[in-house]
Amino acid sequence: MDGELVDDKVILGDAAITELYSTSYYGRPRNGKLELTLIEAAYLLGRERISISRGKKPLNFKEFVKTASNLMEKFELKYIVYKDLRERGYYIQPSVTDFRLYPRGGHPGKTPAEYFVRVVSEREPLSLADIMRHLETAKNVRKQIILAIVDEEGDITFYDAKKTDMEGKMKEVVETNSIKEEATLLGDRVVIWDPELAHTLHHGSFFGTPLHEKMLQLSLVESAYLLKKKVIKIVDGKSGKVLSFNKFAEKATNIEPIFDRKYRAYEGLRDKGQVVKTGFKFGSHFRTYEQIDSIEKLTHSKYLVHAIPDDHIFSLQELSRAIRLAQSVRKRMIFAYTTDKKVQYVDIGRTKL
Amino acid sequence: MDGELVDDKVILGDAAITELYSTSYYGRPRNGKLELTLIEAAYLLGRERISISRGKKPLNFKEFVKTASNLMEKFELKYIVYKDLRERGYYIQPSVTDFRLYPRGGHPGKTPAEYFVRVVSEREPLSLADIMRHLETAKNVRKQIILAIVDEEGDITFYDAKKTDMEGKMKEVVETNSIKEEATLLGDRVVIWDPELAHTLHHGSFFGTPLHEKMLQLSLVESAYLLKKKVIKIVDGKSGKVLSFNKFAEKATNIEPIFDRKYRAYEGLRDKGQVVKTGFKFGSHFRTYEQIDSIEKLTHSKYLVHAIPDDHIFSLQELSRAIRLAQSVRKRMIFAYTTDKKVQYVDIGRTKL
Repeated sequence: MDGELVDDKVILGDAAITELYSTSYYGRPRNGKLELTLIEAAYLLGRERISISRGKKPLNFKEFVKTASNLMEKFELKYIVYKDLRERGYYIQPSVTDFRLYPRGGHPGKTPAEYFVRVVSEREPLSLADIMRHLETAKNVRKQIILAIVDEEGDITFYDAKKTDMEGKMKEVVETNSIKEEATLLGDRVVIWDPELAHTLHHGSFFGTPLHEKMLQLSLVESAYLLKKKVIKIVDGKSGKVLSFNKFAEKATNIEPIFDRKYRAYEGLRDKGQVVKTGFKFGSHFRTYEQIDSIEKLTHSKYLVHAIPDDHIFSLQELSRAIRLAQSVRKRMIFAYTTDKKVQYVDIGRTKL
Repeated sequence: MDGELVDDKVILGDAAITELYSTSYYGRPRNGKLELTLIEAAYLLGRERISISRGKKPLNFKEFVKTASNLMEKFELKYIVYKDLRERGYYIQPSVTDFRLYPRGGHPGKTPAEYFVRVVSEREPLSLADIMRHLETAKNVRKQIILAIVDEEGDITFYDAKKTDMEGKMKEVVETNSIKEEATLLGDRVVIWDPELAHTLHHGSFFGTPLHEKMLQLSLVESAYLLKKKVIKIVDGKSGKVLSFNKFAEKATNIEPIFDRKYRAYEGLRDKGQVVKTGFKFGSHFRTYEQIDSIEKLTHSKYLVHAIPDDHIFSLQELSRAIRLAQSVRKRMIFAYTTDKKVQYVDIGRTKL
């Protein structure tokens, strides 16, 4: 079957509509002809289903690929992804976000496409804003978004991204009306000296870590949260002065420049009823538990949460490392960010297509 | 047993030498008295082995900890680490790098200390230069270095660091004297069209990924390496011009700004006889194989290698994520950097004490 390269399309005669489109959904019929994108054409040329010429001159696979690379940005990346999905039996069509992918068993005309696939090179920086924009576009037409990340050796990793609400099941933090003894800010942590309060906070809501028998140490975000909820009072270990929430936040920001960002995520998650602990051993800000009955019998923590600014730009290597690690400990990787004073959560994970 | 806080030491009478030093190696005897650091004193006070006063006024644990925090930087972090190690049966003494740690079964006077322990807060940035300096200090006195990283909730992760030479077992890359067909730079990768060369490179030395039957795609670092070794010739897909190594490196740097850094590490590792492939799925630049008999039967890749600049400053969260991930796939995390045109490797891993 002969095709002709015209601009950035390959045009085939009407026989191709029957043979390539009707049976396997390659290309789009237009005015009695079949129009293929460069990607589709390269794939069919490589499989020797079609031949291609440009103004009478036949192009072999090498010549066509070289030509197509100069006509279409990221041609070689898109080709790699298209080929992979086609060879694994998916129907796939060009779309605004690179490709539309049909569910297994589905095809154009029978079922709506399920995914928008966006092809990204491992070297491209990917902004949170970009991801959220793709999510919005996809949501408006009831599709999901898939990022197909092509590494420098041509291997593909598929990621899906979705918004999530992180609803937990823990009720409000324990009310303690009687603040007996002030907690102290020592260095970069706060110590609760009151054994009763220490016990209630730790056993009731999994705040802090016992530092020494009945003494509890709280992290900066835990301390700020409990201070804001008026559960504790904090005195500065150096000056001996009582610290207001704002003053404490200021001191915390001096210790940890991204305190504000981390705190917003922490507060958002605690307010949602999640129990939030450090995720340091997993290289993330937090790990969370949806519910805890007893700190002696901790259930599996399902999420790692990392607080990012709303103008964050991911390096894909960083994203790959974070998600792969989360997966290796059977957790979902959640990125938390704040827009219009509201904390938002996006869940990005590896997906097998 | 009564101690007196004098400046930043706690001084006890000679009975303490017998009771605390001779049996358990707390403190250092000096002029017939026993001198404790603030950390040792806090630990013994917490365990009610001693009492402490300051100018006749007795200090309880809370008062002493508050005072000590103001007298010693990172007191609370060092206390957490000291307590953890002591409670697990280690003998530990103050030293230039925070602590000297004796091996299990060893103690001062019997055995030399085995480790220098450096206490670091998860929030401290840690420079490569710092790590290398500690390594040098430790090596001069035949000790190993341990980083005790205290997270915001007071949990400790121990890391060890050591230089490594990354010796591999693969002989020189296959010589190919007959370059039949030029390879093409297309976008951010290079395509080898010559089926014979493609086969030799891929099967002989695990270069590249088959893009399409007998066609091989090479990553930028692979291409540069083979170009430098005169195994391939590369033509720019856009201009049709043959590219010299320097011209290719320039183009590669435009595509990937850290190309030079990655390339040096790649070349260093290949020259050492390692087979080097992308580590993208593990969030690192490379994974390496010490030996490959056949690409159909790949052995386990033992190392992840990340190329960093020689003035790199680690965030400990980043370090934690990288190392935890490497460990979860049973690999060692290696950081490669170049000083004086020589590639160096440092192996940082979690260690259980």
